[in-house]
Amino acid sequence: MSITVPTFADVEAAAERIRPYATRTRLIESHDLNARLGARVFLKPEMFQRTGSFKFRGACNAVLQIPQARRANGVIAFSSGNHAQGVAAAAREFGLPATIVMPKDAPATKIAGTRRLGADVVFYDRRTDDREAIARDLMAKSGATLIEPFDNAKVVAGQGTAGLEIVDDMAALGMTLDTVLAPCGGGGLVTGIALAFAGRSPKTRVIGVEPERFDGMRLSLAAGARTPAPGGELSIADALMAPAPGHIPFAIAKEKLSAAVAVTDTELQRAVSYAFQRLKVVVEPGSAAGLAALLAGKVDVGGRRHIAVVLTGGNCEISTVASCVVAVTEP
Amino acid sequence: MSITVPTFADVEAAAERIRPYATRTRLIESHDLNARLGARVFLKPEMFQRTGSFKFRGACNAVLQIPQARRANGVIAFSSGNHAQGVAAAAREFGLPATIVMPKDAPATKIAGTRRLGADVVFYDRRTDDREAIARDLMAKSGATLIEPFDNAKVVAGQGTAGLEIVDDMAALGMTLDTVLAPCGGGGLVTGIALAFAGRSPKTRVIGVEPERFDGMRLSLAAGARTPAPGGELSIADALMAPAPGHIPFAIAKEKLSAAVAVTDTELQRAVSYAFQRLKVVVEPGSAAGLAALLAGKVDVGGRRHIAVVLTGGNCEISTVASCVVAVTEP
Repeated sequence: MSITVPTFADVEAAAERIRPYATRTRLIESHDLNARLGARVFLKPEMFQRTGSFKFRGACNAVLQIPQARRANGVIAFSSGNHAQGVAAAAREFGLPATIVMPKDAPATKIAGTRRLGADVVFYDRRTDDREAIARDLMAKSGATLIEPFDNAKVVAGQGTAGLEIVDDMAALGMTLDTVLAPCGGGGLVTGIALAFAGRSPKTRVIGVEPERFDGMRLSLAAGARTPAPGGELSIADALMAPAPGHIPFAIAKEKLSAAVAVTDTELQRAVSYAFQRLKVVVEPGSAAGLAALLAGKVDVGGRRHIAVVLTGGNCEISTVASCVVAVTEP
Repeated sequence: MSITVPTFADVEAAAERIRPYATRTRLIESHDLNARLGARVFLKPEMFQRTGSFKFRGACNAVLQIPQARRANGVIAFSSGNHAQGVAAAAREFGLPATIVMPKDAPATKIAGTRRLGADVVFYDRRTDDREAIARDLMAKSGATLIEPFDNAKVVAGQGTAGLEIVDDMAALGMTLDTVLAPCGGGGLVTGIALAFAGRSPKTRVIGVEPERFDGMRLSLAAGARTPAPGGELSIADALMAPAPGHIPFAIAKEKLSAAVAVTDTELQRAVSYAFQRLKVVVEPGSAAGLAALLAGKVDVGGRRHIAVVLTGGNCEISTVASCVVAVTEP
């Protein structure tokens, strides 16, 4: 299989391309978190990004590169969540029709959010339907361009723009980061960020954080080849349940990712609760993975005094946040 | 009655004084909110301030000016909420003992938060006890310095530092604000901000937002003299239920506040819900007053393309946010 792996230059080009459309999120700091960790921790708040997650970045970069002649045919994506809304918003911004293939049992708010952004939603049954076949059918009929959630060089480059912004914000403070933590599902975001740091701040460690049992990146790095995670009981981090890293993300990870670590559902709940109670931000469980690793001491911060944590999105129900707060209330 | 009214120079001095201790919050922007209003709206996120509200600013500025000889006697404050935590944190930062007089029926989290910050909590019964007498007693015994929540020139100057930061952030963007909206209870914050803008950005309108029935600033400006609001049924904006503006805030407001407007509890609920669902931030009801006025169209934004809204704090229970989301869910 031949794949196109994006470069640092692609990330820089993506930043120029999406600048007029994406929200420039700025690092935030918390006195409570700094005091707790004995370090300076900078939060990259991608729940403030357009559509409520970083996914708009990659989708926007991909949609903008569809040749003029194919634009009227529209775009298509599979997603039960944030990628759906990112693609729908980017398509609407540029007047392309969007079709999103979603599982019938996707959360009602994510379906509503995708429709609110003007996309046509097509449902499938996770147990009985072949979603690849549905996609092939739709693409054959319409000539639409498929935008993959992470195995797509333009998407990975787009997600990497979050990394460039982190480097810029730190430079404005006259600082360099020791470590950056980002959630890892298929790996598009964390490897896009790894590309950005390799180009601009190569001494910074970039670490992916996955839910236990869905820690395909960790296992793949250990094995030196893409390796599926055991899976099993679903994690509360619905956005991070990819069975293995994508081909493109893993090709980057082998070269540029420092490590991947795993967190438990209880650690994720605690991070969502902490974010609500002390940071005063809304973070969905998967998006809190980096924060969870930090709070649980899964990443050594000894001597690493400047750390960034990417909070990737906040598209969840109040009941989800409430259940985390009830499960793990900060003292 | 003779009062000391702070000046713009006092606000500038406060900014220098508290800089090493307060969190420098930075304006955030929302694509959804901008699109909805047809304007650029900049949110000043004071729920990210140390202790979860802007109150740390004024408390820190006041504590730092207590003469050395009186510091060991400590500080005292009355508050059921955010001022309590601001004073407790400032006192602990500089090693002063703090006594906070709280109503017995204050929310458990606010009591816990104040104790977590090391303060001694003394309770009174709102119906039967005279809290002024309790304070006089405590001060006579300990020689502690009372830090009033808004009728205190040092506190007002400290709150005004939030305004200076807004002006600085806008200048970095090469922009000037047409309007700033801030919640108004006793008026310490909004008039501190009015001082800051009068000194640095005098064409910007500064507008206070109060809950209906607790709109003492609006009535006082109309009457040209401090006038109590009717009160009555309690508002969900517990932080804003001052019966009338303070003497010091009103003296500033007469000269420098452009207007005050009132919002309903339903409008406050909608703003808390919108903040959770779309802005992905945790805002307590009173702290959402400026956002509520904007969303409800209570402030004319026609031709006013650059608007800042101060979100003052996020110290509330998940159940409070949930009840607002249930009451007013965004479509």
